[in-house]
Amino acid sequence: MGNADYLYPSTNEYRQCAHPVAVPPPQPFFKSFKNSLKETFFPDDPLRQFKNKTPSRKFFLGLQYFLPILEWGPRYTFQFLKSDLISGITIASLAIPQGISYAKLANLPPILGLYSSFIPPLIYAMMGSSRDLAVGTVAVASLLIGSMLGDEVNATENPTLYLHLAFTATFFAGLLQASLGLLRVGFIVDFLSHATIVGFMGGAATVVILQQLKGILGLQHFTQSTDIISVLRSVFSQIHEWRWESGVLGAVFLFFLLLSRYFSKRRPKFFWISAMAPLTTVILGSLLVYLTHAEKHGVDVIGNLKKGLNPPSFGDFVFTSPYLTTAVKTGMITGIIALAEGIAVGRSFAMFKHYNIDGNKEMVAIGTMNIVGSCFSCYLTTGPFSRSAVNFNAGCKTAMSNVVMAIAVMFTLLFLTPLFHYTPLVVLSAIIISAMLGLIDYEAAIHLWKVDKFDFVVCMGAYTGVVFASVEVGLVIAVAISVLRLLLFVARPRTFVLGNLRNSTIYRSVEQYPTTNDVPGILILQIDAPIYFANSSYLRERISRWIDEEEDKLKSTGETSLQYVIFNMSAVGNIDTSGISMLEEVKKITDRRGLKLVLANPGAEVMKKLNKSKFIETIGKEWIYLTVGEAVEACNYKLHTCKPDTTNEDSQPWNNV
Amino acid sequence: MGNADYLYPSTNEYRQCAHPVAVPPPQPFFKSFKNSLKETFFPDDPLRQFKNKTPSRKFFLGLQYFLPILEWGPRYTFQFLKSDLISGITIASLAIPQGISYAKLANLPPILGLYSSFIPPLIYAMMGSSRDLAVGTVAVASLLIGSMLGDEVNATENPTLYLHLAFTATFFAGLLQASLGLLRVGFIVDFLSHATIVGFMGGAATVVILQQLKGILGLQHFTQSTDIISVLRSVFSQIHEWRWESGVLGAVFLFFLLLSRYFSKRRPKFFWISAMAPLTTVILGSLLVYLTHAEKHGVDVIGNLKKGLNPPSFGDFVFTSPYLTTAVKTGMITGIIALAEGIAVGRSFAMFKHYNIDGNKEMVAIGTMNIVGSCFSCYLTTGPFSRSAVNFNAGCKTAMSNVVMAIAVMFTLLFLTPLFHYTPLVVLSAIIISAMLGLIDYEAAIHLWKVDKFDFVVCMGAYTGVVFASVEVGLVIAVAISVLRLLLFVARPRTFVLGNLRNSTIYRSVEQYPTTNDVPGILILQIDAPIYFANSSYLRERISRWIDEEEDKLKSTGETSLQYVIFNMSAVGNIDTSGISMLEEVKKITDRRGLKLVLANPGAEVMKKLNKSKFIETIGKEWIYLTVGEAVEACNYKLHTCKPDTTNEDSQPWNNV
Repeated sequence: MGNADYLYPSTNEYRQCAHPVAVPPPQPFFKSFKNSLKETFFPDDPLRQFKNKTPSRKFFLGLQYFLPILEWGPRYTFQFLKSDLISGITIASLAIPQGISYAKLANLPPILGLYSSFIPPLIYAMMGSSRDLAVGTVAVASLLIGSMLGDEVNATENPTLYLHLAFTATFFAGLLQASLGLLRVGFIVDFLSHATIVGFMGGAATVVILQQLKGILGLQHFTQSTDIISVLRSVFSQIHEWRWESGVLGAVFLFFLLLSRYFSKRRPKFFWISAMAPLTTVILGSLLVYLTHAEKHGVDVIGNLKKGLNPPSFGDFVFTSPYLTTAVKTGMITGIIALAEGIAVGRSFAMFKHYNIDGNKEMVAIGTMNIVGSCFSCYLTTGPFSRSAVNFNAGCKTAMSNVVMAIAVMFTLLFLTPLFHYTPLVVLSAIIISAMLGLIDYEAAIHLWKVDKFDFVVCMGAYTGVVFASVEVGLVIAVAISVLRLLLFVARPRTFVLGNLRNSTIYRSVEQYPTTNDVPGILILQIDAPIYFANSSYLRERISRWIDEEEDKLKSTGETSLQYVIFNMSAVGNIDTSGISMLEEVKKITDRRGLKLVLANPGAEVMKKLNKSKFIETIGKEWIYLTVGEAVEACNYKLHTCKPDTTNEDSQPWNNV
Repeated sequence: MGNADYLYPSTNEYRQCAHPVAVPPPQPFFKSFKNSLKETFFPDDPLRQFKNKTPSRKFFLGLQYFLPILEWGPRYTFQFLKSDLISGITIASLAIPQGISYAKLANLPPILGLYSSFIPPLIYAMMGSSRDLAVGTVAVASLLIGSMLGDEVNATENPTLYLHLAFTATFFAGLLQASLGLLRVGFIVDFLSHATIVGFMGGAATVVILQQLKGILGLQHFTQSTDIISVLRSVFSQIHEWRWESGVLGAVFLFFLLLSRYFSKRRPKFFWISAMAPLTTVILGSLLVYLTHAEKHGVDVIGNLKKGLNPPSFGDFVFTSPYLTTAVKTGMITGIIALAEGIAVGRSFAMFKHYNIDGNKEMVAIGTMNIVGSCFSCYLTTGPFSRSAVNFNAGCKTAMSNVVMAIAVMFTLLFLTPLFHYTPLVVLSAIIISAMLGLIDYEAAIHLWKVDKFDFVVCMGAYTGVVFASVEVGLVIAVAISVLRLLLFVARPRTFVLGNLRNSTIYRSVEQYPTTNDVPGILILQIDAPIYFANSSYLRERISRWIDEEEDKLKSTGETSLQYVIFNMSAVGNIDTSGISMLEEVKKITDRRGLKLVLANPGAEVMKKLNKSKFIETIGKEWIYLTVGEAVEACNYKLHTCKPDTTNEDSQPWNNV
């Protein structure tokens, strides 16, 4: 016993060595409520820079906050202008054919694609905080607008109403985007995880490519649906209608575009080849048609484009039912998707060039540019990845490149639109396909499979949903699976047994560290999630099973019987009243079995709740330790000096009924 | 330096002392998938008892699993029978008046209340695993059936269709309950947290009490709505219709019932006073009406009740639209709510008497009894709290008390129904009110406020939703707030700074342990949730802010500049690909600022993912430590021997644009 005494000092002495577990000092309810509101809505503390400033300085900072051009404008140099000029003209050459193509995708007049590359970039240049984002329309949102509005109004039968609905939807999209930013709930966009976006973009690109079969094959009739089955049925049911002239032209241009992309990818210096390629194909295609009169032999052309700048459209909004609902719904969904792309693109390039982007501020900028755009005949715009990448590669320095692009587009609108009369639609289809092929990121999907199977499932859910059902279905599936994962993490937390690392007082999972030693007579469990209503029943079952299994194991090996159960609470971030009831029930179960329950390292929130609910008194303050090591030491001490003092007074003969 | 050398051995030597962080041994995908399926659906491992048994033994155990009566039946003694006889007769005396009352609440013929106390208890006695649950109809579900079916079919205009719909709804409720159990997804019930149930039950009780104003005041016309505003408007708009005879009778009986409850509560030995009180009031009330002919003076009576046992009703199910949808919807909602009550009640008493209840098995039992019941003119039953408590207090030993109750009810159905002809409705209202007052658990609500404000909000959401809108709205509000809380826990994880506990290598939150010391030059952050897509943007912002704040603080005090950032990953249960991207971005941010990123104690799942995504190579294996203590020691060693070797090669002049 002399040796044991040396190892395990008397209880009181022992308690003095051990570190007490603190209950955090009580905070007034209002203060803690304010804190958690701040953490939820203002995690980046945007008002910090306003501290200790004079009112006029504060006003100017506030103005700068909403108009970053006031910040970088005064420092703008001629050197910057040169770079921005080159990149601006480059993206304009991409914006013009892409704008026309995507507008066709949305069943809107082609000229709208040019309008949309004029006003919104100017707004963004003033309000945006990204230096690399190039503003323009995007394929996925265009397709969505086409399919969602098309369900309500037929674009060919009632083009005016359809057009007005598109403006209204854009207006609501902008309103939603700006509100999300102003209300600081931009974190909603975070629920579109990386995996969701990979799958969603891939699916949408597949759908868009399938839609192009209409243009490539020169078909007159085509299904309104976007799912792969309807589209393929539509294509193959009219084989006799396929136009070979159109098909050959499309294949040639597509080959040229893909070749130029391939070159640029291998040598980043030749980025301009792929940037200029679309405009080149448009020029070549138009010339070809003009010279051969192919428009009379089954090659459809754009036809007349109106000359002149954006006409105002704020009088055209449709606020009457039943169209209002459709417009709002379309605006919401396309707005969120466009926002997610814009934010993600802005953030990626900012990361690359080492500057910061404020997500909420960006949302306000993108939202405002759509609200203003919808008043001047523009439809939904954001920062497309392809165009921004070209902008970046062309060496843009500030958002001024957007202004340059806008001026180039304005020039086109004023003087050059007649030149597009003979542009064959098949060229536009080829441009879209070549852009979309880059969005099917199978390498990212493989990476997801390797690193995280669940993320892969989310990605595939989004992809198949989009391709086989519709864009909305794919999105809903992906978000639902992602949220389910979060809920499952809480509802089915991992629990595992800890063992002692050799020659230390460190305790770690026996699964992760197979060399750890068991501690005789003591079961150490770690719970890896907050204890909430959603998991309290599960945890009770699972803990009982751990104890059963441990007792079975000890019985079969004939070792010391189980005496203590230690919960390592390090990873238990919070607990609610259902969780506390669970602990109380577990306490009763362990008492009944003659085991002692010990807690190790409960955090601040948990200690606060345990204290308020008097569970600390139920379990006994002396059974809560700061570390697993100290808890084990104390248990070992008691184990070697006396039997545990569990009281069995409420164990009953019921067990034997 | 001699001293420093002593404190900090050379790097290699140091690394040898430190414990390496293990990447868990790789598991084949199928095995880990099987494991997580098992944890999700079979946390209690129900097949364990079948291991290593002969096939015939396995068959018998399986039969026992579904029919627990085979387990306890053979051990049944005369002693048990005596106890079960007493408790069975006691609950029958409560079941008869309550059954009639609740059937009226559901706008169903009163006799259905008796039918429902005959067949279902017999089924439950064979299949149920609780020894204390007393089967019967419940007020809240009855009210819900009344209001939900009443929206579709008027019970007074079309009583037959209404009745058949009620059977159909009960059938679907039973089907859902049994399927939840068989598919082992009973954890859905866990999403009705304790707080939700407190608020929901209180709200439903309030609504039910308000509905009784019709009976107490003897009103002929009454609103179909259940919300407080419609009901009070309906009551006070017809003050001239109030019948004082009815009112006085009701008040007297209610006073008597409450008095008996008060007595029983103060002296648990007199539980039979409150158990017998409802039957006594029924007898007294009926006698009074019979003697004074009060039924001719504005006191409504039950009237004729059919004699005889349950007629079969399996031919009456309505499977045609539009009624089918209503029946399914009603069945789903009432089924879930009834199930939650039954499971919670069974579990509470099992906890009290120290035996275990298998939630999924109970669901199958409750579901089967409802399916069978719906085929024999019964409507939705479960294990109501009030009746089970009386059963428990009366000393029941097994589910046999349900059989005794069923026999007593059968006897009533065969011979005694004419006696209820003169029972005044006002007595039934008084019985309901007195039972419902016990469900408004304001003490539990106060407890929630004290321990967990969020749970209190959930509770109040359910209460106000039920009282001011409808039962379904209340339920949806409460579940939505609860789930939002889970999502917020993940979306906005707590991060906090750790400090060194004096004279130890333990690092804890400086908020919880205000006496901890800062470690000069090192910022130690703990992240308190899994790193998922939903929080990766937030964490990036928040971590940047922590670093900013720490640098500002150090600058203002003129201390050593910040050199290391240590993340304590102990509480990070899992990470997904978005989370890994976040870590990569944070690594870039810290590199750019000339800081070194260090990880401490990443768990098994996190190490696996970091390994697969090559992040371990990005950060460097030597910068991952097993404990915060070891990480700090290693940083301190480098801090005192050399400058950190962070490379700034990719910091750019962009910062100054």
